[in-house]
Amino acid sequence: MNVEFVNPFLSSLVNVLGTMANTKIVPGQPRLKKDEVARGDVSGLIGMVGSETKGSFSITFEESLALEIMFRMLGERPAKINEEVTDMVGEITNMVTGGAKRILGEKGYEFSMATPVVVSGKEHTITHKCDGPKILMPFTSEFGKVHIEVSFDNMGG
Amino acid sequence: MNVEFVNPFLSSLVNVLGTMANTKIVPGQPRLKKDEVARGDVSGLIGMVGSETKGSFSITFEESLALEIMFRMLGERPAKINEEVTDMVGEITNMVTGGAKRILGEKGYEFSMATPVVVSGKEHTITHKCDGPKILMPFTSEFGKVHIEVSFDNMGG
Repeated sequence: MNVEFVNPFLSSLVNVLGTMANTKIVPGQPRLKKDEVARGDVSGLIGMVGSETKGSFSITFEESLALEIMFRMLGERPAKINEEVTDMVGEITNMVTGGAKRILGEKGYEFSMATPVVVSGKEHTITHKCDGPKILMPFTSEFGKVHIEVSFDNMGG
Repeated sequence: MNVEFVNPFLSSLVNVLGTMANTKIVPGQPRLKKDEVARGDVSGLIGMVGSETKGSFSITFEESLALEIMFRMLGERPAKINEEVTDMVGEITNMVTGGAKRILGEKGYEFSMATPVVVSGKEHTITHKCDGPKILMPFTSEFGKVHIEVSFDNMGG
């Protein structure tokens, strides 16, 4: 897997949060995830299956940022992560993956998306179990951190 | 979604833990997940994509049970959830879903599996975001609880 497969997720996330939630996030350096563990409070995950590959995508928010996005998208500011917030994280997961799928499809890499799953819990960690490399991309914002992780088996070597 | 789609996951889990880890678990009553939230310490999740449906599967262990299964499968008893344990939970997730996929394939319901993702974090919760019903199946054992959740869009109505 090379940067060609990762950039679509990065640009899709920046686009989704910018247009849907008027929230600017600043990408850090993408890196191969080995021992590094990034923690967060609410995550969306989705499986991806293509004819020649399969993989997974996750997006993990700190609570403060998830709640701010909730307020900016829906005008509500819950005190903590509740079902409305997990619904929103599931939707963002779908939108970001859908955007990346469209970009990758234009390059000839097709895959189908499973349904998203949302995890809620203080400072949990996510590990993608995949033979291919796992790419971690951190982002910062005024309201907290978010990171995404992408992994594919057998895609682009 | 009806019980025909859920039982293969139940029997596959009982079979995997019985044969691979010599661990007996007792199924509780499967139920539709609405407000109910089941918590656990380490979870495996996997996406599923078929030509006419898509969905997700998760399995969530209490730490005590995950560590006991680790000991029984691999002869090691780590003090807490580490990378070996998350690897094992990813493998169990693959095996249980693979077993269910085989049974469902024999009934004419085909799907492909994405790669598994493992979540680690004290008392996290999982929410499947899917238009179809979400089925929660709890199990008890001498060493702690485990539950699985299955959801499919548009499968069997």
